[in-house]
Amino acid sequence: MRSEFDFIQNIKRKFGLGRIGDDCAVLPKDSKTDLVVTADMLIEDIDFRLEWTTPKFLGQKALAVSLSDIAAMGGEPKWAMLSFGVPKKLWKTGFPDKFFDGYHRLSEKLKIEIVGGDVSRTPDKLVIDSIVAGEVPKGHAVLRSGAKPGDGIFVTGPLGGAAAGLVLLERGLRYSPTITSWQKTLLLQQLQPLPSPLGVELRKLGATAMIDLSDGLSSDLAHLCAASGVGAQISRENIPIERKISGLKFTDDEKFRLALNGGEDFELLFTVTERHASRLNKLPVTRIGRITADAGRIEILDDGVLKALPASGFRHF
Amino acid sequence: MRSEFDFIQNIKRKFGLGRIGDDCAVLPKDSKTDLVVTADMLIEDIDFRLEWTTPKFLGQKALAVSLSDIAAMGGEPKWAMLSFGVPKKLWKTGFPDKFFDGYHRLSEKLKIEIVGGDVSRTPDKLVIDSIVAGEVPKGHAVLRSGAKPGDGIFVTGPLGGAAAGLVLLERGLRYSPTITSWQKTLLLQQLQPLPSPLGVELRKLGATAMIDLSDGLSSDLAHLCAASGVGAQISRENIPIERKISGLKFTDDEKFRLALNGGEDFELLFTVTERHASRLNKLPVTRIGRITADAGRIEILDDGVLKALPASGFRHF
Repeated sequence: MRSEFDFIQNIKRKFGLGRIGDDCAVLPKDSKTDLVVTADMLIEDIDFRLEWTTPKFLGQKALAVSLSDIAAMGGEPKWAMLSFGVPKKLWKTGFPDKFFDGYHRLSEKLKIEIVGGDVSRTPDKLVIDSIVAGEVPKGHAVLRSGAKPGDGIFVTGPLGGAAAGLVLLERGLRYSPTITSWQKTLLLQQLQPLPSPLGVELRKLGATAMIDLSDGLSSDLAHLCAASGVGAQISRENIPIERKISGLKFTDDEKFRLALNGGEDFELLFTVTERHASRLNKLPVTRIGRITADAGRIEILDDGVLKALPASGFRHF
Repeated sequence: MRSEFDFIQNIKRKFGLGRIGDDCAVLPKDSKTDLVVTADMLIEDIDFRLEWTTPKFLGQKALAVSLSDIAAMGGEPKWAMLSFGVPKKLWKTGFPDKFFDGYHRLSEKLKIEIVGGDVSRTPDKLVIDSIVAGEVPKGHAVLRSGAKPGDGIFVTGPLGGAAAGLVLLERGLRYSPTITSWQKTLLLQQLQPLPSPLGVELRKLGATAMIDLSDGLSSDLAHLCAASGVGAQISRENIPIERKISGLKFTDDEKFRLALNGGEDFELLFTVTERHASRLNKLPVTRIGRITADAGRIEILDDGVLKALPASGFRHF
């Protein structure tokens, strides 16, 4: 079946929609500033389950996923809109207020103004569309398309934690004050993710291309390489895996697959030139490989062998 | 049950969200311009039925409902984002492409750039969130809150046509080339509405307050009066009713209720001072009453008797 990525590429080509396809659209604001703007849908029973989360966690996550897109452009988030469609049975409970409390708490912490949105009714499932706008100095938004052969490839944090949290939820664990510390860490990475705080700094330090890790490293690296017309070689041993995953008693291969394909870590994947790589020394980032000129070929060095790396992250269709 | 309007008023007060509650949020863009931005959800089986419409009509309507909000601020629409969640059974058909064709056709006609959005999967129902941004000269967005006692109250066109189209759909009529002309007019007002082209001109001519007629005249007038802290008296005999409704063989009272409470006409309701009312002479607008100082009291003169006018338009909850 055609993926949503194919659909988007198709309408982009067919109608000449040059601004779509990055983490955010970049639009002129004033003589010094561009606006970066994003929208993200979260759908009940596709992107979350109500019995796995709390209204406050979900409200916070709704904002966080869009903030992650702003971070991936190197933008400072400024304002947000929230559209949500609520079934009647949920409307009658305290759900909408608690959900909005969670959404508002994160917006307040990060000084993002909530400016509008829409409230609707749905027949059955909760649906959320989160819209956030941010600012970047004119012409300096970090696109997916700026990676060049020879650039180093980096990630901002350990990976696989959100996917491991999902495994715990699927096994029946729920968040409560009594669960162990490693379980709490993993569940919160899934239920209450925070956007990376490094987006703006990485832009200033010269990131050439950037994308947020929402679908999963293997897929998001493929998106970045496709947009840049390049290839990539990464090294398995360099990919940082969330340590708390060891609580799951998974094999090394299983842990590795969570980090590679799991998605929703909301860390940043970015590239910098060799010349600028040393600027990153003091940041909590990890080099995982380098960009090659071999457009579309994405490979992973695993136990001394270079293998093709298929994009196996999340897709809707 | 608490309405969505109550929920919005509550979070507005509780969190001090000064920019929410109008047709669009107004945000500073540059030294001469403000940005006006809106989001509108359309949910299958709440706001539309797939068996009543076509993918192209629906795509166009998704954009039109948001353009109507931009018009209500006196704004020029500039760019748009579309989030849509599609069930797998619909994704496999040609639906997404035809829907986007309809959306794109209207955007192209009105020179609005499509800049982004999101594509998601849903378990069962189609959901759409339409986001549009426009521009107004700084400080000149026409708010709901600017009406003053003595201002004249006007509407931009005949009312009730979209609601009458809904009646025909409920009776089993479907759009086809062979239906009669009056039926076609009414169905298209429901299925393929167009935003009023008068928003910018009315701003320039001095509209003091404006709102689009999406919920229905009785409700939208109540919203405008609440935001302005005023009351209103309108006159039944002056309310323009879509002429084609006569095809329905409704009584005068039935026709009148469609015009008063029907919603989705996407005409504009606005106010102007007495001094500026004469400027409107050449426009296709109709004076229906005047603003009073009696905050919250909305009355209608009907057959020589002044009666309270309850807000009886569309509400989700």
